[in-house]
Amino acid sequence: MLATPVDTFEATLRACAPRLAPGAIVTDVGSVKGPLVERMEALVPAGIKVVGAHPVAGKEKTGVAAASSDLFRNALCILTPTSQTDPDALAKVRLLWEACGAHVHEMDPMVHDRVLGAISHLPHVLAFALVNTIAMIQERHLPGLDLQSFAGGGYKDSTRIAASSPEMWRDICLWNRNNLLSQIELYEARLGHIKALLKAGDAEGLTREFTRAKQLREMIT
Amino acid sequence: MLATPVDTFEATLRACAPRLAPGAIVTDVGSVKGPLVERMEALVPAGIKVVGAHPVAGKEKTGVAAASSDLFRNALCILTPTSQTDPDALAKVRLLWEACGAHVHEMDPMVHDRVLGAISHLPHVLAFALVNTIAMIQERHLPGLDLQSFAGGGYKDSTRIAASSPEMWRDICLWNRNNLLSQIELYEARLGHIKALLKAGDAEGLTREFTRAKQLREMIT
Repeated sequence: MLATPVDTFEATLRACAPRLAPGAIVTDVGSVKGPLVERMEALVPAGIKVVGAHPVAGKEKTGVAAASSDLFRNALCILTPTSQTDPDALAKVRLLWEACGAHVHEMDPMVHDRVLGAISHLPHVLAFALVNTIAMIQERHLPGLDLQSFAGGGYKDSTRIAASSPEMWRDICLWNRNNLLSQIELYEARLGHIKALLKAGDAEGLTREFTRAKQLREMIT
Repeated sequence: MLATPVDTFEATLRACAPRLAPGAIVTDVGSVKGPLVERMEALVPAGIKVVGAHPVAGKEKTGVAAASSDLFRNALCILTPTSQTDPDALAKVRLLWEACGAHVHEMDPMVHDRVLGAISHLPHVLAFALVNTIAMIQERHLPGLDLQSFAGGGYKDSTRIAASSPEMWRDICLWNRNNLLSQIELYEARLGHIKALLKAGDAEGLTREFTRAKQLREMIT
């Protein structure tokens, strides 16, 4: 039986708690904030200050060998203060991230989880599903071919994040399960719409759908 | 009423046909081969040689300003000879692509469409759907926020191809509609499986699913 992600998180915090000096600031770099910031605040001893933080930067690689000294330069770092957050602790954690070159943005922890569910967790789940679909198509319809050997930049870019840590993404998905489930359902509806347009041979509908995506995507670099 | 893709293709070929010298080779760079190679072979005058070609390289940008002199260097180019293909014409087209630095692979036109449906057309459709889902989530659940402004490398990479030409991808999707529809359905099943694991809180199942994707994706760079 695997420990649940929150169990693992709690166990780490409980192990650290007795060693924290009065006035110490506890901060993190987790990808989910709502349930964890709440739990951190409940678990630390009196006098210890909690500041939730999420640097939105990372790679599909893990471990010391994958370290990069400019990982946070010009990256976004989201801090998630609550009504309990100490303003001085918040300011210190902000300075820490700014010193690493990050742009700091503050956000409610629950809003954070909805935003990141959509813009980060959902794309990861979709990438894992795409790679596994390629395996299925190969097994069922193209045995003997190595489908990935025909990949151009499109597939490679869109599945790069499928090489991310399975354990980390399992935990993120479970922590942010409710947001993610409703966002997956919206995605299914959107994909279902394209499928319906394709079935109907609706060239104008497809142009409209693809143009909308292109225009939105071109708003960022 | 829009012209169907095949109509556009036919019109171009019909306009060129009277100007082709005897022995001329007609080749193309289209992303779908099955129905088009067949049509090309049926439409060219006697003595004209058809060779279907698909360089698997490109960018989300179009037009002369987006040209790149090394676009085809080390890229894959798939040639799709049929029983009617002239071996000398095939060899010449192969030399042309090799001179551009491409690695040439020969494949049956129908197999080509299934392979590229999976490894190229499907990822494009999924990227268009993802960007439009982000728009939906923003409108419905996070009005006032610009969701894309919180994007890290994951979303950016996985949606880069959503900025591709809507007209070109409309045509590719319609040409390869049957393969694409069945592949979208396999994708829906795979995503549905992840959704079920999430709903059940099945940590081991999620780890298995994500690990399988990671292992397969790491087989290519």
